[in-house]
Amino acid sequence: MLRIGMLTSGGDCQALNAAMRGVVKGICTKRDDVEIYGFQDGYKGLIYGNFSMLTPKDFSGILTRGGTILGTSRQPFKLMRVPDADGLDKVEAMKHTYYKLNLNCLVILGGNGTHKTANLLREEGLNVVTLPKTIDNDLWGTDMTFGFQSAVDIATDTIDRIHTTATSHSRVFIIEVMGHKVGHVTLHAGIAGGADIILLPEIPYDIKVISDVIQKRTKAGKKFTILAVAEGAISKEDAKLKKKEYKEKLAKRKYPSIAYELAEQIQQTTDKEVRITVPGHTQRGGSPCAYDRVFATRVGAKAAELILNQEYGYMVAMRDGEITKVPLEEVAGKLKYVDPKCSFIQEAKMIGISFGDEL
Amino acid sequence: MLRIGMLTSGGDCQALNAAMRGVVKGICTKRDDVEIYGFQDGYKGLIYGNFSMLTPKDFSGILTRGGTILGTSRQPFKLMRVPDADGLDKVEAMKHTYYKLNLNCLVILGGNGTHKTANLLREEGLNVVTLPKTIDNDLWGTDMTFGFQSAVDIATDTIDRIHTTATSHSRVFIIEVMGHKVGHVTLHAGIAGGADIILLPEIPYDIKVISDVIQKRTKAGKKFTILAVAEGAISKEDAKLKKKEYKEKLAKRKYPSIAYELAEQIQQTTDKEVRITVPGHTQRGGSPCAYDRVFATRVGAKAAELILNQEYGYMVAMRDGEITKVPLEEVAGKLKYVDPKCSFIQEAKMIGISFGDEL
Amino acid sequence: MLRIGMLTSGGDCQALNAAMRGVVKGICTKRDDVEIYGFQDGYKGLIYGNFSMLTPKDFSGILTRGGTILGTSRQPFKLMRVPDADGLDKVEAMKHTYYKLNLNCLVILGGNGTHKTANLLREEGLNVVTLPKTIDNDLWGTDMTFGFQSAVDIATDTIDRIHTTATSHSRVFIIEVMGHKVGHVTLHAGIAGGADIILLPEIPYDIKVISDVIQKRTKAGKKFTILAVAEGAISKEDAKLKKKEYKEKLAKRKYPSIAYELAEQIQQTTDKEVRITVPGHTQRGGSPCAYDRVFATRVGAKAAELILNQEYGYMVAMRDGEITKVPLEEVAGKLKYVDPKCSFIQEAKMIGISFGDEL
Amino acid sequence: MLRIGMLTSGGDCQALNAAMRGVVKGICTKRDDVEIYGFQDGYKGLIYGNFSMLTPKDFSGILTRGGTILGTSRQPFKLMRVPDADGLDKVEAMKHTYYKLNLNCLVILGGNGTHKTANLLREEGLNVVTLPKTIDNDLWGTDMTFGFQSAVDIATDTIDRIHTTATSHSRVFIIEVMGHKVGHVTLHAGIAGGADIILLPEIPYDIKVISDVIQKRTKAGKKFTILAVAEGAISKEDAKLKKKEYKEKLAKRKYPSIAYELAEQIQQTTDKEVRITVPGHTQRGGSPCAYDRVFATRVGAKAAELILNQEYGYMVAMRDGEITKVPLEEVAGKLKYVDPKCSFIQEAKMIGISFGDEL
Repeated sequence: MLRIGMLTSGGDCQALNAAMRGVVKGICTKRDDVEIYGFQDGYKGLIYGNFSMLTPKDFSGILTRGGTILGTSRQPFKLMRVPDADGLDKVEAMKHTYYKLNLNCLVILGGNGTHKTANLLREEGLNVVTLPKTIDNDLWGTDMTFGFQSAVDIATDTIDRIHTTATSHSRVFIIEVMGHKVGHVTLHAGIAGGADIILLPEIPYDIKVISDVIQKRTKAGKKFTILAVAEGAISKEDAKLKKKEYKEKLAKRKYPSIAYELAEQIQQTTDKEVRITVPGHTQRGGSPCAYDRVFATRVGAKAAELILNQEYGYMVAMRDGEITKVPLEEVAGKLKYVDPKCSFIQEAKMIGISFGDEL
Repeated sequence: MLRIGMLTSGGDCQALNAAMRGVVKGICTKRDDVEIYGFQDGYKGLIYGNFSMLTPKDFSGILTRGGTILGTSRQPFKLMRVPDADGLDKVEAMKHTYYKLNLNCLVILGGNGTHKTANLLREEGLNVVTLPKTIDNDLWGTDMTFGFQSAVDIATDTIDRIHTTATSHSRVFIIEVMGHKVGHVTLHAGIAGGADIILLPEIPYDIKVISDVIQKRTKAGKKFTILAVAEGAISKEDAKLKKKEYKEKLAKRKYPSIAYELAEQIQQTTDKEVRITVPGHTQRGGSPCAYDRVFATRVGAKAAELILNQEYGYMVAMRDGEITKVPLEEVAGKLKYVDPKCSFIQEAKMIGISFGDEL
Repeated sequence: MLRIGMLTSGGDCQALNAAMRGVVKGICTKRDDVEIYGFQDGYKGLIYGNFSMLTPKDFSGILTRGGTILGTSRQPFKLMRVPDADGLDKVEAMKHTYYKLNLNCLVILGGNGTHKTANLLREEGLNVVTLPKTIDNDLWGTDMTFGFQSAVDIATDTIDRIHTTATSHSRVFIIEVMGHKVGHVTLHAGIAGGADIILLPEIPYDIKVISDVIQKRTKAGKKFTILAVAEGAISKEDAKLKKKEYKEKLAKRKYPSIAYELAEQIQQTTDKEVRITVPGHTQRGGSPCAYDRVFATRVGAKAAELILNQEYGYMVAMRDGEITKVPLEEVAGKLKYVDPKCSFIQEAKMIGISFGDEL
Repeated sequence: MLRIGMLTSGGDCQALNAAMRGVVKGICTKRDDVEIYGFQDGYKGLIYGNFSMLTPKDFSGILTRGGTILGTSRQPFKLMRVPDADGLDKVEAMKHTYYKLNLNCLVILGGNGTHKTANLLREEGLNVVTLPKTIDNDLWGTDMTFGFQSAVDIATDTIDRIHTTATSHSRVFIIEVMGHKVGHVTLHAGIAGGADIILLPEIPYDIKVISDVIQKRTKAGKKFTILAVAEGAISKEDAKLKKKEYKEKLAKRKYPSIAYELAEQIQQTTDKEVRITVPGHTQRGGSPCAYDRVFATRVGAKAAELILNQEYGYMVAMRDGEITKVPLEEVAGKLKYVDPKCSFIQEAKMIGISFGDEL
């Protein structure tokens, strides 16, 4: 008998269901003696022993469905070792559930925080296989994560729609794209949508440069300017602050997010009307795009192969176009940022896109 | 020789180009001796005499294109009669352009404000035919306006995406839909998207009712609640204020829009995490949906017929499924609101949707 | 106790689930004592007594889902009265199931054939309420059917895509749109997609006219011609044949469908390369569009109202924008064709669209 | 002065305009003294000297537009060296145009055939830079071509729609996906769409295996089976024929394409109703997806860099995620097939997808 626990953790994204379907189909075409324990709402389900017994049929027809049939929750890594009010050590609780159910392994789908906890469980001796899930594509050790391309598609569609209305009026438009720490989604969507200015957490901006770009466009007879701005975009000044100082500054900010702050600054410095669009959680929603479905299915099948071979302690990854495995200890806790000097950024600058950092 | 002036005014929307294409194709399949003057950026072009000479070819291939090839601007009706700093009377300026170019008629595409000015020009003796353009579907005298169904599609798509991510987490989601004065888009998109609570300018809400609905849903085991909220949604208290008082209150509001205000109130009264999505101007953008293209093409063709028959002073409209004409004086300046007692609202309440007004 | 049987019959379409959800939500917000019997695969389920007991929860989350959770089948009206090989009279069998389960009424969702059988059951004394489902919008007594607008959207999207590739090459493109007897979908999609020639079952075409239109376009410098052709498009010659003769001719046709026949004729008469697209059953598939969801929800709620009021023997319909009821006996067996003389066709001709009937 | 000729050749696809925009923007942000000669309809324009002078403005706003603003045509490589009826040697004609216009280089966008001719021109001494365009992703030397992901998206969308209608009826559905020689699009779309059987030109099928799979599914209680079939799918028997014999057999085939042939065979061997969908040229149409826009923009920018550096004789390619250059002589004339033994196929088989080759 093969007993597999499965959970999805962190912010949800597209193709979580597609990936789990891949794992289950991959295992169940080879073996009949499989029990699948679906833990509810992420690590919480593992901690408190909340799960459903699932059959292959539960994974049929979910390839195209957004969200996760298991539910998810954010469970901060830092608190995993901190006992609850009632004295519960969450790591011990998870181990307890694992051993009590006599599981052969855990399949864990998640992003950066999730991988830290997954690696911790590995260190504690549990058999773990993980899948790289996040719209942010910021996981170290893999060229791609599922959810990313779908999020890019949605953010791009938003910019596209703004483009047509932008040509009718003479305005500045800000589209706030998801990404607090990394800017991959903003970078791709910005280029795909033909944004004029792209602001990323990795490349601090100067509001004067932004104003200059807008005014130069006006002089060149362009009616509008479109900014694709990551949630975590940061000014050069703020980038000099210490982390703690910046957090305090953010907490006091009178705007709900960066887009609103930028809008006021631009309105003041350029005298242009500014309009804001915040697609927000739509970027995590809806059916996964074809790319993500193929990718999630492949990593799911690969995870099945690892489990059938009893190869544990790995994240399934894509490297140079091939699906492969990477030791968890190598990837956990590391973020993959946009490198301001990478060729992609250079190509973007070459076609005249401004990153707000220089004229 | 037939000399036609054409302009698009007010907030832009989908199918403006489709409608103009219908007008021009409809006229040019009948007559060869046509000159088309495309005024730039709405009434502004007529006031200052800015126009391009257009040929049928300019209207080819624009059926599916969003925005307006003529550009548009908001030109407040109230200021039309107020002379400029340099003493320019704008109404006289428009008449001057009209007579100087020896126009046979003006084709004007716009919403409520646009129609007031169009009717004014009619009263001044100009030949005018108008087309009902607005995402709000709030024009009196027509069952439908083009742009409306496309905006509903986009807002619905937004709610759909939120729905899939909502099922993964346990949260309240607010989607802020366009509509400051009327709630047609929010009502349709809310129902199409399966929103649990729909807030319209025409039906003031009680925050206690909203909290109650959310908590009842939680008790019934539903993880999430989705609110489709019109920009102009208003509380019962605020609805009692005088218009001026309310405007002053709004001006002091610390939130950029109603969604953010509601979010804080809900967070306080229900202790739920709330997430906000503001699709904003995306609702005016992109290619028109099939419905709008058909509708816009038909009203365009009808406008062509009126012009060929020298029937002026009408808005082209849809009534009971037929394309027809309505005297401008009957429609100008009147808004078509959502009637809180209409059968549509009753049907929505019947299937359990809350409008925040009663339990 | 209120016992409701429900079935979906005939070709499937979008918004069947949305409509059933509307019925069930509408009833269950008013009454707790409801039993819902979902018959499987259309009338077949009623005949053979195959059903599932369904709860309101089964209808939750299906608003946006295509297909039908009950399954469907085509059950020719003509055979309903003909005993089976094993002597089963199907009408009696249906009555038997109805009375055995002690049903209060049947909710039947379907198109033309379905309504004939529904009316027959009504005549036999059963309580019946029907909902107008078909992509064809060919039901007599209602201005609209659900499924129609979604099918138009999909066919339009097909023509849109062809349009962009058509501009690159110098070719003739045929898009074969669903509709064997009526041309509503083809007419709407053809106009929405900017087709140059639209061929409908109701307006027989002359291949010489088609060739002429194509050659005139070539002379006018247009690279391509796009034809939106209904499956049941028919030549003037064939339209003169007796029904039986035409059927025989069709059976011998060496092409799988009209598009392939036309392609060869056009290739011969114009010497142009022709490309064919057959979207086929995609036109019935996928999530319903916003329009259909709203419409289906409304007719569902109205059906609930009728049931709660014990008003039976009606089809729920839309007339002049209002949801209303129509006696089944008035509508059963009648088709709503495209009237070749209606204003819509005239508007289309006015903007230069050819229907292949005249130059 | 920098004089650049540009042409798009072969079947059109998405993102051709995006790629050309990338080239022009990339060059014109660095140099002002540029002349762009846009040759019409592929090599034909170069042969007969048909071109337009284009400015950067002509490339503005075309990022999202399908098709190619230059037009295209198929110009068989084999005939390039064969003089016309009027004695015209086409290769000499192209060189003549090139030298007469005093061009510095040619930017050529195309697929396999196009690259053969491009390499020929390079051998003849012309400066050439090429971009990898084709929905088929069958170009040797690059991991990706633009157009591919967009075509996969469209084919996947087709399968998705069929899926929902398939669940309502008990049928077999065949979706015929573009690809005469290679099956990349079918493979990706088949997996993304959840097809049960995928037939590729590279993996000959056995009709008995297909029937078996369908019947096993029926026995397992699955109502429907979906086949994603490449245009060039071939049976094991036919794969044994010599190329010439097979061509003759195809010419005599009574069906317009493989889908119709398979449908009849499946109907005979399984007694199931079969429905066919042929999305056809829609797969080349419409706005490019975000992935293709980013990719096309990047290769365009890279081509600009090569031109500015006077590095000629290269195709711009993607390898291991980086945009790079590959010598034309290495890639021209070679196709990149789906390797039946690659890990991707193994992963697909692992989750239970049949390729019709084995049980």
